[in-house]
Amino acid sequence: MPSAAYRELERRFARMSGIDNALGILHWDQETQMPEGATETRGDALATLQVLHHELLTDPRVGELLDGAEAAGGLDAWQQANLREMRRGYLHATAVPADLVEASAKATTACEVAWRAARRDNDFAGLKPRLALVLSLTRQVGEAKSAALGLDLYDALLDGFEPGGRAAEIDAVFAELAAFLPAFTAEVLERQASRPAPLPLAGPFPVEMQRRLGLDLMRAAGFDFERGRLDVSAHPFCGGADNDVRITTRYDETDFTKALMGVMHETGHALYEQGRPAAWMHQPVGSSRGMAMHESQSLALEMQACRSAEFLAYAAPLMRAAFADHADTGGPAWTADNLHRLYTRVERGLIRVDADEVTYPAHVILRYRLERAMLNGDLALDDLPGAWADAMADLVGVVPPDDRRGCLQDIHWPGGAWAYFPTYTLGAMIAAQLFDAACKAEPDLLPGLTRGDFAPFVGWLRRHVHSQGSARTTTELLTAATGRPLDAGVFKAHLRRRYLDA
Amino acid sequence: MPSAAYRELERRFARMSGIDNALGILHWDQETQMPEGATETRGDALATLQVLHHELLTDPRVGELLDGAEAAGGLDAWQQANLREMRRGYLHATAVPADLVEASAKATTACEVAWRAARRDNDFAGLKPRLALVLSLTRQVGEAKSAALGLDLYDALLDGFEPGGRAAEIDAVFAELAAFLPAFTAEVLERQASRPAPLPLAGPFPVEMQRRLGLDLMRAAGFDFERGRLDVSAHPFCGGADNDVRITTRYDETDFTKALMGVMHETGHALYEQGRPAAWMHQPVGSSRGMAMHESQSLALEMQACRSAEFLAYAAPLMRAAFADHADTGGPAWTADNLHRLYTRVERGLIRVDADEVTYPAHVILRYRLERAMLNGDLALDDLPGAWADAMADLVGVVPPDDRRGCLQDIHWPGGAWAYFPTYTLGAMIAAQLFDAACKAEPDLLPGLTRGDFAPFVGWLRRHVHSQGSARTTTELLTAATGRPLDAGVFKAHLRRRYLDA
Repeated sequence: MPSAAYRELERRFARMSGIDNALGILHWDQETQMPEGATETRGDALATLQVLHHELLTDPRVGELLDGAEAAGGLDAWQQANLREMRRGYLHATAVPADLVEASAKATTACEVAWRAARRDNDFAGLKPRLALVLSLTRQVGEAKSAALGLDLYDALLDGFEPGGRAAEIDAVFAELAAFLPAFTAEVLERQASRPAPLPLAGPFPVEMQRRLGLDLMRAAGFDFERGRLDVSAHPFCGGADNDVRITTRYDETDFTKALMGVMHETGHALYEQGRPAAWMHQPVGSSRGMAMHESQSLALEMQACRSAEFLAYAAPLMRAAFADHADTGGPAWTADNLHRLYTRVERGLIRVDADEVTYPAHVILRYRLERAMLNGDLALDDLPGAWADAMADLVGVVPPDDRRGCLQDIHWPGGAWAYFPTYTLGAMIAAQLFDAACKAEPDLLPGLTRGDFAPFVGWLRRHVHSQGSARTTTELLTAATGRPLDAGVFKAHLRRRYLDA
Repeated sequence: MPSAAYRELERRFARMSGIDNALGILHWDQETQMPEGATETRGDALATLQVLHHELLTDPRVGELLDGAEAAGGLDAWQQANLREMRRGYLHATAVPADLVEASAKATTACEVAWRAARRDNDFAGLKPRLALVLSLTRQVGEAKSAALGLDLYDALLDGFEPGGRAAEIDAVFAELAAFLPAFTAEVLERQASRPAPLPLAGPFPVEMQRRLGLDLMRAAGFDFERGRLDVSAHPFCGGADNDVRITTRYDETDFTKALMGVMHETGHALYEQGRPAAWMHQPVGSSRGMAMHESQSLALEMQACRSAEFLAYAAPLMRAAFADHADTGGPAWTADNLHRLYTRVERGLIRVDADEVTYPAHVILRYRLERAMLNGDLALDDLPGAWADAMADLVGVVPPDDRRGCLQDIHWPGGAWAYFPTYTLGAMIAAQLFDAACKAEPDLLPGLTRGDFAPFVGWLRRHVHSQGSARTTTELLTAATGRPLDAGVFKAHLRRRYLDA
């Protein structure tokens, strides 16, 4: 029998979930519907709800209830996990003094605004004072969390995005990738150069056709439109609320391939959200398990399933049919084989968000190493542009001609999201490992994809990942699902198979 | 100098405004965007925010602060009015015990659901037990508010929708209208029958064309699209948030006239919301002044301005141009004169929401009299259908063949909105009085409408109504704007002019 203290905690966290769900819809609205003149009023409304949420979570009463519920026991496994996640949330929220939370929120807001101008104007020097303040406050936040959680500074920040994530483990897998990628990339590019270049697709590709094709593929993947939507925003995302998962994309009438694969990427995130355990939907244990696992779900769908030759054999005729009225879809550019080559093209590039599957991890490893160095004082902000250029040369093989396409390209650091970057590549590795295990467990998975049947793969993900919520750690989840903890070797094998063996 | 207590109240009410703005967007989303499967989760989120709002407002600390701020003084006129409105909100919210609030919310939610089925099935007997419970709880709420506010039961309920509204004053103006309308309606219908019937407009009228025409007319009226939107919902409304005013309509491809005038009706509400004083936008004194004044703004735009011969002379060519590609807009049905006759057609009907300007007040007076009788125990629920039929025969001149088109047609009573109905007709009378005063003050008003220039009228409304927020009572506002308190004679004169003299 759960104690009264535990029950009271569940009620309080359900209330916070109500606020979170309101915030999720308001954020979606802001990006997709809101008229510009409402910006300030909306900011006030969001801040009000965030403060109310923070007050509910950091109320000393929560500490008493947590102590009481932990002492009383009487909980089943899910309730115990729920209590553990409540404690985690409480620790993170109470670790940082209110004035530091406020100073940090103000500094990052101002720095984000300054960053937009600085990136446009290639003005790193102009951004530096504000970025230095964000770095300094982030370090203070990290120190506060470090003390409260008993973790190193970086791990304490990382734990906010990736519960249980540890730099020591990341160092190991990233070292393995960093040793592998430069030579591998060269090999892939050499092989690619020895073959004919993929043929470009000539449009136009009307938005409405792109939208319909995206909806069809979302439906095939199992997206539940009774509990979600597809819309348009400048920056694609997966958001919304419990039982109301809203993804967005951005259409380009001269190139449908990016928006379409973007839709499948966000659909991967959305399937995770829609597949969380219904009975725990509004409790901490019903949440998704951290940013790395979340990214793994988007990449499992996009990179593992949808960029496979199997799926593209299914999708190619649908693409041709979708655009037949507006483009000449009868030519050789529209074969499944050419589409596969387009969707697996590798290139040394300057911009992370445009990077392909092979070079993307290099962009991430670079940022991970630089942010750690800045946080622990080994790298001064003044030296960031130079260090960035050196690392790009080493890891990606290109050097940015300016900071706009260098250390100014991402919003994460100005926005205060330090220790976030590694989750992208952890996600890519987890995705490969999950897909590998699922293929072995479900012999019909790959043949299914050639018919647009995602059920074997998505069903496996639902059972092994989505339905687990936050009941287990990322490592426990991954080990239970694949038989072993994170193993960079599976990702490397996937890259070799796709880019060298095929 | 405002006291510290007053300043603290302003901060607290700004926070409540943040919650209200969140609620407004969530309600809009629910009616226009939300996938069906999110209904329950959304209900939880709305309830959470409502409870948080209620807790902020009814906190005993608010009572202490109000006492303190009232004793301290030092406020300018707007601050004093703001403090008065805070006290009003506090009195209403604390008047009703929490368990009665909850019982009432549950009963009305259940009764609304039952009402949908009962109306569909023409089953008054089936609805009766739930409606009796709502009536009984509403009476208890009224008694609690009556004790707290020192008002009669009906006035105490009315005050929640129409601050300062009193049944004694409504009785007087409604008696004048009830004495006038039956004979007047007969006279109008007789005159109408003596002239050729208006020619019908043949479509189709594509939604996109209707939408564009509506947007053009909204723009002409002064709707600010930087701080608002037009969308579609099953039941048109004006909602959203401060600086983010969202109106909706519902299109019918066989008849554009209803949706178009509906858009102008909601635009009237929206102009009020957009014109509230910017400096007080998030404080009680910056709110609109009650439901009667709000309805007056929608009716001033729709009934007074847009159904005038002057405006329709401007709109007719726009309508023809909008639909010229899809309908034969060259015929005599599309003259300004015929459009004016269509838009001022009078008919004895059973349904309030379909009623014209002449018969609408009779529908309202009937409901006002019946709800007062039910609340004070003079009319038993069992006798409602019979009393309804009798009053319809007397006031409108038709008798409903069933309850579906009789006492089951409106959601207000099942939904707990008792003492709301009179505000519709108070609004119609205020609208006529404002328009009359504005025409006298602004000689260019009517000529302006023939050119689609709303500036003289809307500018006058902004100065005399919108910008005043809740700084004055409805009667003070009306007297300052028109030189006298509510006068049914102006409304009667308007009806005579439009329906008999023209």
